[in-house]
Amino acid sequence: MPRNVQSLGEFGLINSVKKYQCPTSFVVHGIGDDAAVLQLDAGRYQLFTTDMLIEGVHFTRHAPAKLVGHKALACNISDIAAMGGLPTCAVVSIGLSPKLTVRYVQDLYSGMSALAAQFNVSIAGGDTVRSDKLVINIALLGEVEKKCLVLRSGAKPGDMIFVTGPLGNTLRSGKHLDFMPRIKEARFLVEYFRPTAMMDISDGLAGDLAHILKASGVGALLESDMIPINPGATLASALTGGEDFELLFTIPSTCGKELIDYTKNQNRFSFIHVGTITGKAGKCLLKDRQGLISPVVVKAYAHF
Amino acid sequence: MPRNVQSLGEFGLINSVKKYQCPTSFVVHGIGDDAAVLQLDAGRYQLFTTDMLIEGVHFTRHAPAKLVGHKALACNISDIAAMGGLPTCAVVSIGLSPKLTVRYVQDLYSGMSALAAQFNVSIAGGDTVRSDKLVINIALLGEVEKKCLVLRSGAKPGDMIFVTGPLGNTLRSGKHLDFMPRIKEARFLVEYFRPTAMMDISDGLAGDLAHILKASGVGALLESDMIPINPGATLASALTGGEDFELLFTIPSTCGKELIDYTKNQNRFSFIHVGTITGKAGKCLLKDRQGLISPVVVKAYAHF
Repeated sequence: MPRNVQSLGEFGLINSVKKYQCPTSFVVHGIGDDAAVLQLDAGRYQLFTTDMLIEGVHFTRHAPAKLVGHKALACNISDIAAMGGLPTCAVVSIGLSPKLTVRYVQDLYSGMSALAAQFNVSIAGGDTVRSDKLVINIALLGEVEKKCLVLRSGAKPGDMIFVTGPLGNTLRSGKHLDFMPRIKEARFLVEYFRPTAMMDISDGLAGDLAHILKASGVGALLESDMIPINPGATLASALTGGEDFELLFTIPSTCGKELIDYTKNQNRFSFIHVGTITGKAGKCLLKDRQGLISPVVVKAYAHF
Repeated sequence: MPRNVQSLGEFGLINSVKKYQCPTSFVVHGIGDDAAVLQLDAGRYQLFTTDMLIEGVHFTRHAPAKLVGHKALACNISDIAAMGGLPTCAVVSIGLSPKLTVRYVQDLYSGMSALAAQFNVSIAGGDTVRSDKLVINIALLGEVEKKCLVLRSGAKPGDMIFVTGPLGNTLRSGKHLDFMPRIKEARFLVEYFRPTAMMDISDGLAGDLAHILKASGVGALLESDMIPINPGATLASALTGGEDFELLFTIPSTCGKELIDYTKNQNRFSFIHVGTITGKAGKCLLKDRQGLISPVVVKAYAHF
């Protein structure tokens, strides 16, 4: 019987299509980070990302249209944040049913537009097509100074691991719809603290940390009593839940200590130390409250 | 009863969401052309476009996966051609069922990739999500020298109207799946002949010419016996059928005559004169074989 997508899984699928990239000198980093990195000019790279949201998978028919529009753009802006950049310009494709009310579509755009205005993003074009289920795809451009670019591949043993906020329970609480992308936090970090690796959390802390560990060829030790969790969330949901959209980053320990001091003395940003990068490539360990260390069993959100 | 999308129609819908663009100085031309035009550097603009293809609307489940992949990229490249530019880099979002075979997905990418290689396009990233029906969205960047940019808004009374090939019957013949985007023709035109307006034909000759007439504030007289039609096509399907993806352009009459002479003396490109721009804003007339002139009744493909 021919293999299907489910048997391959999301990342198996991504790996199997990587060979179709057709690389050109225009692309500095292709598939494998939160956004593609393209040549722009002497001092800057252009960032390019896309996210598709499908009714019944990423939001329900009952979710307020404004929040659906907000989320569709926010998850793209979050990808640009994860690279250390600033978003610039989006194109929006919408597949929708002829029976949908005009009001719903306007609310959708208004949610998107309010967030776009907040981050100085232009909605410059798009496509509207017929579809039984609502589908929204946004592609977003961004820019980053070359010296500020952060990939997933720079984490070093001894680096401290941080997140920008509490995790878990985002689906039931609705936070997955109305989260604020961490552009300001990311820009502060790349300007003053230079993270060695960064990404946004969309598949749980452990699920996404695994990508940094793989890309950087390192391991990690997480400390369970340091991991911030949302009201109603369990540690397990923080580790392997979905769609937190907080940033996860690593930073050399001297800078990390300064960042902890900085965080104590202000109320602007929240940077929470959750563990340390180790030299044990690919191994993610968790120290529990009793000091016992065991491997993290990652069962991230399965798209397929 | 609240108004629905169907009652508004595709272009009513696009108009109603134009106010959500959030313009910035970064965007030179936003919604309303085949691609958005962005600032790039002193000599060039960046082009940015996106197209969404949905199973059951733009292709059937029985269409060969390679052709579906080809079409998904080709209609984006066609948008870049319509602006006079060259494509550079794409991101690909795919919504697919877990039951789909890995072979199907690989064929899809392989069709896309073969076309990408031909036009020097990098596939730099993307998103894969779960969906009952197959959905493919590609966002594509391109570049164009400032002096070569062609919009829909530059047609002048007296300009000659041309198309790059025969029209009609593309759905039944399958041409809508395997067409070749007219990048070479567009680049030849912008380098040597400077069209005053250009776009690609995805809603029939008359349906799309209406966009140029509206954007340019002019009218047109088409000549029925000059309009090239595909085998099996009727004049009506050429005028109002869908998805030809030939270029439609206007050009001052002195250049137009040179272009006709050029076309006669070579076999490289086909540029076919089909009518003339008039001063009667918004009016599209058709001269039939007997010399009778009547208004073209545009019943373009209705997405909603």
